[in-house]
This record gives sequence, C-alpha cells and structure tokens, in this order.
Amino acid sequence: MEIMNKPSAPTPRTQVKRVAEYASYDAALLHAIVDSAYVCHIAFGDANGSHCIPTACWRLGEHLYIHGSNGSRMLKRLQEQECCVTITHVDGLVLARSAFNHSMNYRSAMIYGRFEAVDEAHKRVAMEAFMEHIVPGRQAEIRAGNDKEYAATTVMRIALAEAACKTRKGPPNDDAEDMDIPVWTGVLPLVTTHGAPIVEEGCTLPTPAYVTAWNA
Amino acid sequence: MEIMNKPSAPTPRTQVKRVAEYASYDAALLHAIVDSAYVCHIAFGDANGSHCIPTACWRLGEHLYIHGSNGSRMLKRLQEQECCVTITHVDGLVLARSAFNHSMNYRSAMIYGRFEAVDEAHKRVAMEAFMEHIVPGRQAEIRAGNDKEYAATTVMRIALAEAACKTRKGPPNDDAEDMDIPVWTGVLPLVTTHGAPIVEEGCTLPTPAYVTAWNA
Repeated sequence: MEIMNKPSAPTPRTQVKRVAEYASYDAALLHAIVDSAYVCHIAFGDANGSHCIPTACWRLGEHLYIHGSNGSRMLKRLQEQECCVTITHVDGLVLARSAFNHSMNYRSAMIYGRFEAVDEAHKRVAMEAFMEHIVPGRQAEIRAGNDKEYAATTVMRIALAEAACKTRKGPPNDDAEDMDIPVWTGVLPLVTTHGAPIVEEGCTLPTPAYVTAWNA
Repeated sequence: MEIMNKPSAPTPRTQVKRVAEYASYDAALLHAIVDSAYVCHIAFGDANGSHCIPTACWRLGEHLYIHGSNGSRMLKRLQEQECCVTITHVDGLVLARSAFNHSMNYRSAMIYGRFEAVDEAHKRVAMEAFMEHIVPGRQAEIRAGNDKEYAATTVMRIALAEAACKTRKGPPNDDAEDMDIPVWTGVLPLVTTHGAPIVEEGCTLPTPAYVTAWNA
C-alpha cells in the first residue's frame, strides 16, 4: 500500500493509534476527501447522550461548512461545544486468503473543533460556494436565496486544523503461512457513479450542459 | 414523495422533529438501510469530547454488529455508555428552481442504545454472517478464523430497537411562486456501483462465480 504520510503535529485527539501506518495529516489529502463528499457525520452530545447526525457539507478554503434552519437542535448545540466531523468513502472490499485478513479500502477524514456561525455577508458567499460544489454552473440560472430565506438559515464552519485522515488502498495483506491457500485474492471495487438525470415531470426546458455531462 | 411512515413508538431520542414527514419507524426500511451498508458511523464521548468513528457493520436478526481488536478504544468505551449509530446513503442531488429548495435524496438510519459484547460461541456465528454479508459464498474457500484470531477480537452488537429512519426521494419541491422560473429541474442520481474486480498480482487461480458476478 502506498499511503500518503506526512505527519504535521497530530494532537491527542487526532493521533491515530490503530493501524497507524494508514494515517495521514496531509492537507491535500484532507481537502480531496472533503471535496469528494456530499455528506459528513457529526458527533456531539447533549442531555440525551451522544448523537451522530448526517448533514450536507462543503469546503471553502481551510474550513468545512454546514447549514441548516435556525431552529436546528444540532446547530444550536454545535455552537456550545466541540465536536467531531467524519467523512468516509468506501472504495472496495479486500479479499484475502484468511477470514481475518479481509479488509476494506477506504478514505476517511476526522475533524475536531468547534463550529462558528458565519456573518450575513459571508453566509451568501458560503451558500453560493455550496451550490457551486453541488452543481457547478447552476447558480446563475436559478432564483438566488432571498433575505427571508437567508434570515431563517444558519451557516456554520469548522477549521480544518485539527484533523486526521486514514486511508487504505491496494491488495490484501495475507499472513506468510496462508500464501499457499488456493483461493482467488484481490479487490472488489465500490464506486460512486452518476446515474442518468431524471427530469421532473412536466419540465420541457432544454437540458443544460452540466446535466448532460452528469453521466456522459 | 412516497415516504414509508408507520410510526411505532418513537422515543424522545428518535422522535424526528425536522422535516418530520421524511421520518419512518418501519422495521423493513431499517433493515434495508442497514443491509445496504458496509460502514456505519458511531458517536460516543470520552474525556476528550465527542468522537465519530466509521466502522464496518452488518445485521443479524434484530441487531447491528461491529467488531474490532480487543484493544480498541471505541469498543471499550461502547461497553460503558450509550451511543448513536448512523448509516446514510446519498441517492441523488435534487435540482429545484430556487437555491434554497435544492435538496438531496437519501436513506438514513439512526440507532440509539448500548452495545454488548457477544460470547465466544456467538462470535463465530456473527463473524461468519459478516463474511456472508461482504462476499456471499466465500466463507467455504478461505481459512476460517483460528482460536488466536478470535481471542484477539471483540464482536459487539446493538439492538435495532430504538431507531428511526429518515428518507427523501423524488423530484424537487418548489414554492408556488417559483414555478415559472425557466430552469431545468429534476434529480441527478448518485449510485454505488461495482467496479471490475482487481485480481491480486500473481494470483492465477480461477475466478469464482461470486467475483465474476460482482460487476456482471
């Protein structure tokens, strides 16, 4: 396995202990993992215990952004406490000669810290970056958010400062004494692909280039 | 949207409050979401705060299972506290006429409760079910786990009892006053697909049927 591994000051929370050779603190890898994601999972706690909530995310510079209704429980709690944001891409099933050496290929990132709400001016910049992340080129064609919509929405960001990536790629790692077991070994890849666009019933408008290109 | 919705006693932790019409407490939907997953995210806390850890998961009956090394911090903590397990499948980007009505189609499940370690006999049953979940039919061809491997491994399960699903599918929901905006609307699907199997270098054994079928 060729794992990117350029440690840069892990903290007690981001020091990977299990299978530490899969760990990386490389900013380019972290950016790539975040940019490949539509959704992250956020862990936080309250009087009812720990919660793990999936929510849409995107990156702008050195921050990961989320948004939601002003009334969201999670967004309120995240302003009061540190949390952990995790993104995981599963890339394949790794088929080894022994049951216990089976594994998965994956790219994951964990980010620790505290979210901060962004101000009104930055809210618009951030939400336009979100649209550009989701569907590049669409922003100019739709109705932009109005004052009422922005006023009802909280946009928050967390610095990509205290973070660690963990990745695995490549073939299985079998034990030396298992190498003569006569079984097929390799990787069954899992790939997130783009399906054929589904036009809304009744929509007769021309298909924009970014939709045609979606699964070209 | 046709959302399955057969409420069956949500608890304070599983009562969905935001966009509650997307919520479901249907066991068949919960099973389907878990069975489609290779990985879940688990939220728990310790002296360093909240953590959100991705880990492989599978279902056997009315429990979700995970496994790991006996030394795993997470597995130790999960025996001492309640946690939240979340699975999310992102199915598509929903393109509406206004920026704020853009959405995603998804299937997600949240499970609350406490994991319990399973005993030695059940450990083997559970790990064989895991292999059958990952690669059906492979169990008989590989070297099964030996006593040393099982002794070093903890298998835990959490009841699928206190759980909620939240799903969205279908076209965008636009505001009435936006319906004349001349922009293409619909869904850009995201699909997890099976890539061509990658045989390990040097493996010259026949390809088993379950590998050939992977991306047939």
